[in-house]
Amino acid sequence: MSVAPRAVRQHPSTERIDDALAVEEPLEIRVEERSIAVLMRSPGHDLDLAAGFLRTEGVIEDRDDLSALAHLPGDPAGNTVQARLAAGVEAHLDALESATRALYASSSCGICGKASIDRLRIDLAAERPAPLRLPPHILDTLPAALTDAMDGFARTGGLHGAAAVDRNGQLLLVREDIGRHNAVDKVVGACLRADQPVDTLGLLVSSRAGFEIVQKALVAGFGAVWAVGAASTLAVDLAAELGLPLTGFLRAGRHTVYVE
Amino acid sequence: MSVAPRAVRQHPSTERIDDALAVEEPLEIRVEERSIAVLMRSPGHDLDLAAGFLRTEGVIEDRDDLSALAHLPGDPAGNTVQARLAAGVEAHLDALESATRALYASSSCGICGKASIDRLRIDLAAERPAPLRLPPHILDTLPAALTDAMDGFARTGGLHGAAAVDRNGQLLLVREDIGRHNAVDKVVGACLRADQPVDTLGLLVSSRAGFEIVQKALVAGFGAVWAVGAASTLAVDLAAELGLPLTGFLRAGRHTVYVE
Repeated sequence: MSVAPRAVRQHPSTERIDDALAVEEPLEIRVEERSIAVLMRSPGHDLDLAAGFLRTEGVIEDRDDLSALAHLPGDPAGNTVQARLAAGVEAHLDALESATRALYASSSCGICGKASIDRLRIDLAAERPAPLRLPPHILDTLPAALTDAMDGFARTGGLHGAAAVDRNGQLLLVREDIGRHNAVDKVVGACLRADQPVDTLGLLVSSRAGFEIVQKALVAGFGAVWAVGAASTLAVDLAAELGLPLTGFLRAGRHTVYVE
Repeated sequence: MSVAPRAVRQHPSTERIDDALAVEEPLEIRVEERSIAVLMRSPGHDLDLAAGFLRTEGVIEDRDDLSALAHLPGDPAGNTVQARLAAGVEAHLDALESATRALYASSSCGICGKASIDRLRIDLAAERPAPLRLPPHILDTLPAALTDAMDGFARTGGLHGAAAVDRNGQLLLVREDIGRHNAVDKVVGACLRADQPVDTLGLLVSSRAGFEIVQKALVAGFGAVWAVGAASTLAVDLAAELGLPLTGFLRAGRHTVYVE
């Protein structure tokens, strides 16, 4: 339920009408009995979101790392998802707390983007898939294909979209959310839960590509990132450092290649 | 330095050229010796951002609560800001950690948007300024005025903007950032550092208005929120509950009034 009605007045009209709005509600993610995050998200595909969040935050690596994943029966609002980990996976939980701290605690030169990139390079360098490069005539089709698939956005104008795309430009899977990071995590989690490898796929986003979007794509193991919006300096530097093709300002007939 | 060059190829051209990109770098915020947050932000107006963040997170209430605010000399990258609090303000620091926990720890019905709103209502109900309502002919001018003031966006297409606006539609102060929450915190912090009351001003944002944007506007004490993008259900419910006029899809000649 990512869309809900609210009474609004659309100026220059004077009467109040029911408009369709993007739904925003908190989701608590628990691992075993421990609460590890509260995300503001659009309800729907909550298990994908939780699985993707655990994947891109480094807690799990594949579906086998989860022994269970479900809404908590004790929460009638449906806003709590609990994950149980397979034996031996518990240790990764510490990654959640240590990652941000490590960013600056270990850096004698102070916190900076370079330190952020170095940390990821160490974690990810060994596992990079082959870069995925699509010809322009296929890239040209992606923004319209994504817009067509975003039912919630068409109704509300208030949702972000993300998709897993194959080398023929087919959108295998699309997710929407009020948060652009959540939309990506939903795609990552849906692939993980379906045992769908992503190393021959690219990640398409309706939004801008900042550092965290590229980071999530790298950790999940996508072969490319294509964004309808702009990329940031740190996103470009990270993608270049790890050999991830990164394209932005995707339109029919033009786009900006940040990393080939 | 919110804009920097990077070599890109703008398809259908084949040559690489220098493009202007939105800069993204981490900023660590310390209170006394304690690190309380790392934000991905666009460098520039860092002290405004830190002061605004401390204000909207409930650590400080006005300029007198800060005894010092400066970049840490020991960080040559310029990515660490340290705040020192006036005597008696230290206790508010606990709010930072307890706020999110309180959201669900105290709620017997589980986590939900209603609980999020209830918590804010208790904190803020006594201090609300008079609602600020501008006539349509003034609202019509705001999106173009904001775009005109966003130099960084014009060059990169990758920055969000926020502004403090008076009842004549004058933009008193504009800030840009790669993060839309940061842009709002920079405006809040700039007003706080200048001892500029905001209760007769509105907050204008180039982006969507989600729960956290409305929350920040309420905590800072603005009289209205106007967004170029859509508002979420939870943002509308929060604004309605606390009597904050909220308008979205701001365009010349039309807009959507969520809360009058």
